[in-house]
Amino acid sequence: MNLNRGVAMFSSNRVVQLLNIKYPVVQGAMAWVADADLAAAVSNAGGLGIVAAGNMPAEMLDAELIKIRRLTDKPFGLNIMLLSPTWEDALDLAERHKIPVVTTGAGLPGKVIERLSPLGTTVIPVIASVAHAERVAKQGAAAVIAEGMEAGGHIGEITTMALTSQVSRAIEIPVISAGGIADGRGMLAAFALGAEAVQIGTRFVCATESNVHVNFKKKILAANDRGTVVTGRALGHPVRSIKNKFTQAFADMEAAGVPIADLDKFGSGKLRAAVVDGDVENGSVMSGQIAGLVKAIQPAKEIIEEIVSEAESLSRAIARRFD
Amino acid sequence: MNLNRGVAMFSSNRVVQLLNIKYPVVQGAMAWVADADLAAAVSNAGGLGIVAAGNMPAEMLDAELIKIRRLTDKPFGLNIMLLSPTWEDALDLAERHKIPVVTTGAGLPGKVIERLSPLGTTVIPVIASVAHAERVAKQGAAAVIAEGMEAGGHIGEITTMALTSQVSRAIEIPVISAGGIADGRGMLAAFALGAEAVQIGTRFVCATESNVHVNFKKKILAANDRGTVVTGRALGHPVRSIKNKFTQAFADMEAAGVPIADLDKFGSGKLRAAVVDGDVENGSVMSGQIAGLVKAIQPAKEIIEEIVSEAESLSRAIARRFD
Repeated sequence: MNLNRGVAMFSSNRVVQLLNIKYPVVQGAMAWVADADLAAAVSNAGGLGIVAAGNMPAEMLDAELIKIRRLTDKPFGLNIMLLSPTWEDALDLAERHKIPVVTTGAGLPGKVIERLSPLGTTVIPVIASVAHAERVAKQGAAAVIAEGMEAGGHIGEITTMALTSQVSRAIEIPVISAGGIADGRGMLAAFALGAEAVQIGTRFVCATESNVHVNFKKKILAANDRGTVVTGRALGHPVRSIKNKFTQAFADMEAAGVPIADLDKFGSGKLRAAVVDGDVENGSVMSGQIAGLVKAIQPAKEIIEEIVSEAESLSRAIARRFD
Repeated sequence: MNLNRGVAMFSSNRVVQLLNIKYPVVQGAMAWVADADLAAAVSNAGGLGIVAAGNMPAEMLDAELIKIRRLTDKPFGLNIMLLSPTWEDALDLAERHKIPVVTTGAGLPGKVIERLSPLGTTVIPVIASVAHAERVAKQGAAAVIAEGMEAGGHIGEITTMALTSQVSRAIEIPVISAGGIADGRGMLAAFALGAEAVQIGTRFVCATESNVHVNFKKKILAANDRGTVVTGRALGHPVRSIKNKFTQAFADMEAAGVPIADLDKFGSGKLRAAVVDGDVENGSVMSGQIAGLVKAIQPAKEIIEEIVSEAESLSRAIARRFD
């Protein structure tokens, strides 16, 4: 038992031990958003910050990785999108910079595990189904991030509630739950479903240290539970973002049966337009369904401590609900 | 504190008090499935059983309500689909039979509340967004069932995780969480998110007392986390059911832009075909995403007691995760 109540220690938490972090909170790897500044802030606050390689050219990613080493001496991660044309550059850089943790998106991380595990890198794939989780566990993944379809950006079809529960019963390695989590209630719910950590995206997009355009943050702060929509199902690549002119135009084109190549072209560059230029009407404002709970711009440290402390007090109160 | 640990009392649970039941477990009101036999079994076991009026002709529903009075002396509910052509007949019958609890689907229950509340009936609408919850609370609803899109049958777009959390922060009346819940983990997660009870559908479809065709139960028992699909988004009435020939044909017709009237016609009678005739390839096998966790046909009493007891022990264990 924790004798010092109110100070969460997570002394038997496998994710905390595996990643050598203080709190079982991982920052989502949003392309264009998850840079060295945000990731370092999260890592310095005791979570795991992650730099998203996205489609970054090698020189640019190299600079981010040099920068984050300067900003933190804590463990951090690099996310490699396996569908990106630059994913092998990112893999080279992960090796060269001896990145402690690598998370992977969109596919099977066999090659990444083969190359990086011998160097001591912890490889954690993002998965969206039980079968996917089982496959990466066999390939040697150290843990999985089970991401529900309420998450922002590229998503699967299974929700966090259904996914966390089924994945954590199916595999032995630790499960990090993602999608729809922005507060201590969400963290405790994820623990109840069998997760040992949470990945938080949308709320960190609104962190003080996040470099996204202020218009992007305001759009999330103003959104309610019905504020997001999924587009791209016709392409086989569903994406969740905040409803705006762009999503309406995209949805109309999909419904009209516009060819996939044209849709792809229309969507290209739209995330950058929103994140960097602040064009939140014609750009893609990727965000999770939990945006309605994100109501303030706060430092990453404050966000993490609020979430952990809310989850901890709730964990002690919840047993009384059965009395 | 509960001095008799292991026996959940729920002595401060508002849903248990409001409905005068033993356990905060409500049975989902699946059309063609939720009949007097299933509802009575759930009510006799200490939960709230619900008869689904669906599109039943008045004489048939009248017979079900006479039957359930014979099968249980415990509180039970009637679900009225506000879009059904027979909903006013169901309302008349609710009044005539002095049904203790009425849940409503698909719309605003103002008229139902106006007519039944003075008679002492507890009216609980199913809602799928915060705005919908706020509206029915203003109309005088006693509680809400917040149903996430991982549920089976007719669904909204917000997931249980995102919906329960946001709805329970927005309204004062009790929240019953539905969608993706089939075990004690799900129940405790719902409590963490602010719910005071859970509604369970898919697992009760497989109860011993459920009269659905055995083929229907087998289809659910065999499904995994990716076993369901959503059709009908083009119609504006998304429905989740188990992937089969029917859902494939429906999806193909939707993608091909078949007119709505033709889609409606094609879908008509398909739930009955699966539930009653056991045609689980050409019929609609409505089921939630949590089907992968449903692994046995069990009496309703066993289902409820397993869920409550798992949730209760987990509630005591979970505080230690923070030590």
